[in-house]
Amino acid sequence: MSAVSQDIKNIAYDIRPATSDDWPGIWAVMEPVIREGETFTWDRDTDEESARAKWMKEAPGQAFVAVRTEDGTVQGTGEFHANQAGGGSHVANAGYMVGAKYSGQGIARALCAYSLKEAKQAGFRSMQFNAVVESNVRAVWLWQSMGFRILATVPEAFNHPEIGYVGLHVMYREL
Amino acid sequence: MSAVSQDIKNIAYDIRPATSDDWPGIWAVMEPVIREGETFTWDRDTDEESARAKWMKEAPGQAFVAVRTEDGTVQGTGEFHANQAGGGSHVANAGYMVGAKYSGQGIARALCAYSLKEAKQAGFRSMQFNAVVESNVRAVWLWQSMGFRILATVPEAFNHPEIGYVGLHVMYREL
Repeated sequence: MSAVSQDIKNIAYDIRPATSDDWPGIWAVMEPVIREGETFTWDRDTDEESARAKWMKEAPGQAFVAVRTEDGTVQGTGEFHANQAGGGSHVANAGYMVGAKYSGQGIARALCAYSLKEAKQAGFRSMQFNAVVESNVRAVWLWQSMGFRILATVPEAFNHPEIGYVGLHVMYREL
Repeated sequence: MSAVSQDIKNIAYDIRPATSDDWPGIWAVMEPVIREGETFTWDRDTDEESARAKWMKEAPGQAFVAVRTEDGTVQGTGEFHANQAGGGSHVANAGYMVGAKYSGQGIARALCAYSLKEAKQAGFRSMQFNAVVESNVRAVWLWQSMGFRILATVPEAFNHPEIGYVGLHVMYREL
């Protein structure tokens, strides 16, 4: 585990493993994303304790945060873990969330880059996303620009609250 | 939920929802499959209680069994459940296991057919398998013959205990 410092648009932030002290800040980023239900296949009424149990992964997985260097404000968060158990445990899965008011600053990209490096270091051989919502085009483009390719699109696998049924991409890259 | 009676190779069996009385018979079928670790992405040392919690799905999912009509012996078992939560909860995922000494009698096919019917009745719109081991060619062929198509093969996503890294198929069909 390591920390990465970045300075984008003059707002310096660090990416590092999450601690239990970070949880309130993580939840502040996470709750609107879950409630909105447009990009994550989580129950939209997931409560805070369940969310915490789901998100705060343990080794070889990891939960991590992007915090403003100046005051420790959590601007984004991510986690990775084994996508499957047993014979499938060398493939990582990951997720990332950025607070709405911090978007457009490159934080999602930096969180993803951090996870690629850390997952490889933890022994994972590749990373697979199971359910990238097709309509989340900025994310799809971003992951593609980071070396992920769309292996398949499961048709109508996501019921978007505004636009209805859209596909879920399975995306993949080696580490 | 309903029961299906079949008579294949003169051994009559029923497929019906599993009850807690079925668990010892289910575990007898399941344990060798898990320990062997050639077809399921489960930890190979999964203990009985964890296996039970993982397998015995609740509505809208269901765990079910194929039992010999004559004496209630569990010959095979299956389960289905929502593959994702939230906006993805209309897509079912399913798994099936047949006892080694009962293979070749059409039980896997009958379990799958039962799950397709029951999952549709429970409101699922499609069924997705996330991790069909590429080397499990009989299963791949069987699911294809039942209308599933391979949407993608995640390269080297399964470490087979005998043949090493093989792909995991994502398979899919509408209900």
